[in-house]
Amino acid sequence: MESIKSQSYEVHLEDLAEAALKQHIAKNNYSKVFVLVDENTKKCCLPSFKEKLGYSIDKVFEIKSGEEHKNINTCSQLWQLLSDHDGDRKSLLINLGGGVLTDLGGFVASTFKRGIDFINVPTTLLSMVDASIGGKTGVDLGALKNQIGVINQPQMVLIFPEYLKTLEDRQVKSGFAEMLKHGLIQDADYWKSLKDSNDYANADYIKKSIAIKNDVVVQDPTEQGLRKILNFGHTLGHAIESYCLEHEERPTLLHGEAIAIGMILEGYLSHQLKGLSKLSLEEIKNTFLKYFAPVDFNPEDIDAILELLKYDKKNSHGNVNFVLLQNIGKAIADVKVPENLFQEAFAYYKE
Amino acid sequence: MESIKSQSYEVHLEDLAEAALKQHIAKNNYSKVFVLVDENTKKCCLPSFKEKLGYSIDKVFEIKSGEEHKNINTCSQLWQLLSDHDGDRKSLLINLGGGVLTDLGGFVASTFKRGIDFINVPTTLLSMVDASIGGKTGVDLGALKNQIGVINQPQMVLIFPEYLKTLEDRQVKSGFAEMLKHGLIQDADYWKSLKDSNDYANADYIKKSIAIKNDVVVQDPTEQGLRKILNFGHTLGHAIESYCLEHEERPTLLHGEAIAIGMILEGYLSHQLKGLSKLSLEEIKNTFLKYFAPVDFNPEDIDAILELLKYDKKNSHGNVNFVLLQNIGKAIADVKVPENLFQEAFAYYKE
Repeated sequence: MESIKSQSYEVHLEDLAEAALKQHIAKNNYSKVFVLVDENTKKCCLPSFKEKLGYSIDKVFEIKSGEEHKNINTCSQLWQLLSDHDGDRKSLLINLGGGVLTDLGGFVASTFKRGIDFINVPTTLLSMVDASIGGKTGVDLGALKNQIGVINQPQMVLIFPEYLKTLEDRQVKSGFAEMLKHGLIQDADYWKSLKDSNDYANADYIKKSIAIKNDVVVQDPTEQGLRKILNFGHTLGHAIESYCLEHEERPTLLHGEAIAIGMILEGYLSHQLKGLSKLSLEEIKNTFLKYFAPVDFNPEDIDAILELLKYDKKNSHGNVNFVLLQNIGKAIADVKVPENLFQEAFAYYKE
Repeated sequence: MESIKSQSYEVHLEDLAEAALKQHIAKNNYSKVFVLVDENTKKCCLPSFKEKLGYSIDKVFEIKSGEEHKNINTCSQLWQLLSDHDGDRKSLLINLGGGVLTDLGGFVASTFKRGIDFINVPTTLLSMVDASIGGKTGVDLGALKNQIGVINQPQMVLIFPEYLKTLEDRQVKSGFAEMLKHGLIQDADYWKSLKDSNDYANADYIKKSIAIKNDVVVQDPTEQGLRKILNFGHTLGHAIESYCLEHEERPTLLHGEAIAIGMILEGYLSHQLKGLSKLSLEEIKNTFLKYFAPVDFNPEDIDAILELLKYDKKNSHGNVNFVLLQNIGKAIADVKVPENLFQEAFAYYKE
C-alpha cells in the first residue's frame, strides 16, 4: 500500500513499512538501536517486530501502559536508562505502542541530549490514525493532558494493521471515534461510509483517516489556523477525560470514549451557534451512542469538568475556543461559546 | 551599541536593549508576562529590570541559584506554577539570571504547552558571552550536564553590562574564561588584547565575544561541523566540572574555572597532536594560571574524571572527540585522542 508523505517524513503501511524500516536502519549508522514497549506490546507486538526489523536491538525499555504513567517521572526513568545504556546523539529510539507510548517516547527522544532520532510504530487504532501524525510529543502534568511537550517529527511512522488483532474491542472502538471525527470535520462521504461499516479497522479506512489528518497538518504544522479543526470534540472531550482520570470513583474513559461524548456536546453547540441541522445533530448523537454507551454525569461532575476547561492548551487570553461544525464535513475554528450553553449541551447528551 | 543578528532573533545591548524590550511587549499581545529569577537576581537585578520593562509583571517565579538545582524537579515546579497562574500559549517568560537560569527557563518555556515565547536577560558575564547565543536549552541529569534539553531560540536576548557590577569577582572571571576561549579558537588578536586587559568585562569585549560565538552558531545551528570548535576546553572541562559537583569533598568549580583547566589540558593535547607550538601552549597555561589558581587532582580523581568522559554528549560510537588548536586563533574539531595522553596532560597541568 502506497506511503503518505508528511512534513519531513513518510508514513509507510503494511509491506512497505517493513522494507522502509530495514532500509532506514541500513542507511543510518546508528550507534545504538533502542525499542520502547509497554507490558502489552512487549508480549503481543515485540516478537513479530523483531522479525520485521531483522537487526539486533541494543536494549528494550519497558514502561507501564496507561495514561497515568504518561508523566515526567516516566520520562526521567527513560532518560536515565538511555544514559545508563550509553545512548548518544547517534542513537535511535523506536516507539512500539499506543498513543501514550509514542507521545512520551517521542518527547524523551526529542529532549535526550537535545534530540535523537525516533521512529513511531503505533500499535493501536487510535495512535495509527491520530497520534502518529503531526509531530506532537509530550506528557501530562497531573490531570492536565499534554501540558509538557514539543513539536518534533519522527524519522518515519510505520503502520502494521495486524497489530490491531491483539487489541481488545474497547481499544479499537476508541480509535474509531477519531476516524469518525475525520469524516465529520472534512469528508461527509467518508463519515457516511464509515459510520455503518462492520470492518472499520482495515488498512483502507486507516489510510484514509491518516490522509485526512495529514492534509490538515501539512497545511498548518504549528496550529495557527486550519489544524485547529482536528480539535472538534476535544475541548469538552479532554476536560471529561481529565476529570475521570482525576476522580478514582469515576470509571476511566479511553480517549476515544471521551471525545465521542465531546463530539455530541460540541455537535449540540454547533447546532445552536453555527447552523448544523437538527437532523445531522441527531445522526451524530445516534452514531456515537450506538458504539459508546452513555455515561452518567451529575451536576457536580459537570461543574468540575467545566472548571477544567480553562486549562485547555488551545485557550488564550482566558477565552475558551471551540471548533464547531457548519455541516457534516465542514468545520470552523475559533468559535467563542457562551457559558450557559455548556449545561444545555450536557442536558441534550443525557436526553 | 548596535544589535547583533542571530538566527531568528537579535541580541540587543545597553540602551537599545531597553527600547527593543519595550517595543516587543507593546507589539505582542501577551496574555501573561512572567519573569523567572533566583534569589540573587531577585535582589540585585529585578528592581531595575522592572523599571526598564515599564510593564506590569503578572507573576515573578523564583528558583534557587546553582547548578545543583538545574534539574527536572525544578522544571516540574515551574511547569506547575505556570499552569497554576493561568499560563497559556500566548504567555511570555522572561529569564533574568545566569546560564543555569536561562538554560532551565528556556527549556521550561520550550516545553510548556509545546512551547511559549521566552526572552533571555543574562546577568552574568558567562551567560552574556556564552549561554545567551545558540538556542541551547536544558537541564542536568544527575551529575551529567545538559543531558536533557532542546534547541530552541528565544525571542530576543538583552545585554545590560551594568548587572555585572552586582557579581562577585569569581563569577566575572568565570565568564572571562569563555571570552579567552573565543580568542583561542577564532581570533588571535582578540586573545592578545584580552588576556592582559584590566577591564575585560566591558561592553566592547562582550560584544566581540558574542559576535564570534554568533558567527560560528549561525553558520552551523545544529552542531554538524564548525560549531563544535566552541567546545574547546569543554570535553575535559565538563568532566572535571561534573566530577567536582558529584563529590562533596571537592570544592565546586564554576563553569569557567573548570574549562580554564580543560583548555590547559586540551592545549597540551593540541601541542602533542596538532602542532600547537610549545610557546603558545606555555602562553595559554600561564594566562589561565594567572587568573585561576591551580586545582590539585590526585590519581583517583583523574581516573574518575576520565570515566565520565564517555558520557559526553559530543561523543558517538564510543569515541571521545576533541576540539584541538593548530595555532592560537585556529581550532580543529573531531580529533580522536589516544587515551594515554590524558594522564600526560594532567601531569603537564600539575608541573
